[in-house]
Amino acid sequence: MTAEKPLVAITCTAPTNIAVIKYWGKRDEKLILPINSSLSVTLHQSQLKTTTTAAISRDFKEDRIWLNGKEEDMGHPRLQSCLREIRRLARKRRSGSDGDSVPLSYKVHIASVNDFPTAAGLASSAAGYACLVYTLAQLYGVESELSEVARQGSGSACRSMLGGFVQWHMGDRPDGKDSLAQQVAPESHWPELRVLVLVVSAEKKKVTSSSGMQTSVETSSLLKFRAESVVPGRLAEMARCIAERDFEGFGQLTMKDSNQFHATCLDTFPPICYLNDTSQQIMGLVHRFNAHYGKTKVAYTFDAGPNAVIFTLEETVDEFVTVIKQIFPPEMNGDRFLKGLPIRPAELSEELKSALAMEPSPGGIRYIITTQVGPGPQVLEDPQQQLLGPDGLPKLVS
Amino acid sequence: MTAEKPLVAITCTAPTNIAVIKYWGKRDEKLILPINSSLSVTLHQSQLKTTTTAAISRDFKEDRIWLNGKEEDMGHPRLQSCLREIRRLARKRRSGSDGDSVPLSYKVHIASVNDFPTAAGLASSAAGYACLVYTLAQLYGVESELSEVARQGSGSACRSMLGGFVQWHMGDRPDGKDSLAQQVAPESHWPELRVLVLVVSAEKKKVTSSSGMQTSVETSSLLKFRAESVVPGRLAEMARCIAERDFEGFGQLTMKDSNQFHATCLDTFPPICYLNDTSQQIMGLVHRFNAHYGKTKVAYTFDAGPNAVIFTLEETVDEFVTVIKQIFPPEMNGDRFLKGLPIRPAELSEELKSALAMEPSPGGIRYIITTQVGPGPQVLEDPQQQLLGPDGLPKLVS
Repeated sequence: MTAEKPLVAITCTAPTNIAVIKYWGKRDEKLILPINSSLSVTLHQSQLKTTTTAAISRDFKEDRIWLNGKEEDMGHPRLQSCLREIRRLARKRRSGSDGDSVPLSYKVHIASVNDFPTAAGLASSAAGYACLVYTLAQLYGVESELSEVARQGSGSACRSMLGGFVQWHMGDRPDGKDSLAQQVAPESHWPELRVLVLVVSAEKKKVTSSSGMQTSVETSSLLKFRAESVVPGRLAEMARCIAERDFEGFGQLTMKDSNQFHATCLDTFPPICYLNDTSQQIMGLVHRFNAHYGKTKVAYTFDAGPNAVIFTLEETVDEFVTVIKQIFPPEMNGDRFLKGLPIRPAELSEELKSALAMEPSPGGIRYIITTQVGPGPQVLEDPQQQLLGPDGLPKLVS
Repeated sequence: MTAEKPLVAITCTAPTNIAVIKYWGKRDEKLILPINSSLSVTLHQSQLKTTTTAAISRDFKEDRIWLNGKEEDMGHPRLQSCLREIRRLARKRRSGSDGDSVPLSYKVHIASVNDFPTAAGLASSAAGYACLVYTLAQLYGVESELSEVARQGSGSACRSMLGGFVQWHMGDRPDGKDSLAQQVAPESHWPELRVLVLVVSAEKKKVTSSSGMQTSVETSSLLKFRAESVVPGRLAEMARCIAERDFEGFGQLTMKDSNQFHATCLDTFPPICYLNDTSQQIMGLVHRFNAHYGKTKVAYTFDAGPNAVIFTLEETVDEFVTVIKQIFPPEMNGDRFLKGLPIRPAELSEELKSALAMEPSPGGIRYIITTQVGPGPQVLEDPQQQLLGPDGLPKLVS
């Protein structure tokens, strides 16, 4: 394949997000329609992001995709759903006008890289599909509601289409047209909020989210009750906590909702256990830390894996990271233990140390990423950052 | 204190029990009235029992009690409840007659020993209070319904007043007169049933059942839903499985109910995590073992701790114990790894080994007690087995 003909390429980045009111379970597997609404915090792309370049050229013989440098099957049904939807929207948009937009008949090449390790257990598919849909939409000049398209790639991807605090409304239409993400508050709303990703040493995830949630829907009566009777009230309460920047309420509800999600996993048959002994140690530590201060200064949440995501405020972040480092002293492995925003070591009071009263567990946590709330997907203008070369192939192949 | 005056003593034993439909949560803390009915299997006293001697003498100056050789406070409210109730029933019974029964005004000495280690995490309070109430009743010649009295010592103790398969009916009266245990089937009903207690290496229980269940009632909406909407149907289904000796149904429901109980613990705030990594490994192993055979040949259940109780049938017990020994090879500590009923090493097929595909975790399990379904409390006729000497003091003081 040569690059004699001009190639039109665009490169974008998209964030990951962490749900504080959890999504678990679909009412429609194909359209990815959830059994309850959910609410998340978009994480800043300075620390964690996906970058995607999409290019079209008359010379391309077929649609192709490379993820982290490795070519993947473009025939994957969820990829196809996203590509088909964007092309349909582009066609619809153009039926009225005829500007100099890129030809829809050309094949597309896509390259995508995550700058966060799979081991982080963060929903790389959320950032990945959000980035894919956003980039394709930029390429084809589509400006309509995109969260509905991203949702069809991966449910939680729809929430990564927006920055700040985002609610995914479950909707009630069978065609999913009202199952969309909406910003609850922008990323500038709560500047003191900090997010720590504690990457726990563990084997790979045993049960994927996708198959796990399907089994949960089929077998857990507690999940059905939660989705119908608990979540609606929690969403309203969470929106209030965010609006009022009420960390006490936000933190408590975030922890309760994480625990209830993992409770429904355990009520699934066969049961799903994502929390391991280290996860449980972190949970216990957070409760003791808060009990010592008589208020909620830190809060945990766990997705479909053992890694903890901690919410706290700027004033507490140095102290809490220092606590974590003392209780989970890093094992030497060449990696940096603290990544992301800078942390200053704090002096821990004797009262705090004795209140926490925990035996150190060396190596229980591999590293910590410190980050904050961030914006939605971005276009990268610098052509140096394109992932596809002028020949339409990835610049970096692993 | 001397023993010149004759001492009247009686010695009894009582079993522990393991719930297959779990009890968790009280609607009345003082009377110990549960928020749902529960159903248990009484374990055989050849392996696990409490022995209690109660004696009265004109010489005794006060009511006293020794547990495992150590004197304890007789003023404990639950002990007092049981003693008061038995004396009340004795008084009521005697108001009509005047036989040569023991004087109610005399003080009582009580000695009680468990032959199973606290580390086994089995409800020693169930066997303990059942034995106390049964022994006092024998001493005072009380023959009325005793499960109601035992319940006021420890909820699950009421189920240890009967052998075989036992349901504790929650009742609906505020005074608890209808919150009683009833035998569903005698111990002879299902002779092939075997019970393995897998004692997991772990620190002491973090949250006691009593305080844990109180927090759960106060904070878990899933527990309320479970008690009201899930348990009634499960009790009927479990009774059917037992009546028909349907191990497939019995095993599946036992596992589901254990998981749902632990789910409600996790939904408690602050959350309660009784299952550790080893517990989760055992659960995974059971599911893989059953999947390999395409039917439920073993089933787990967990109480308020990490130790597993496994139900299986005689035909499977040797093979499953051999599997456990391979995956959790015993660490040398002087103790016997296999206790209780004899086990013959089995030949494991290569297909089974590869289906289980687990890395060995040396020392994860400390030992296994093999037992079966057993009868209710018993009177020991042999005076050699009395725990109190002729002076009214414990023969063995630790």
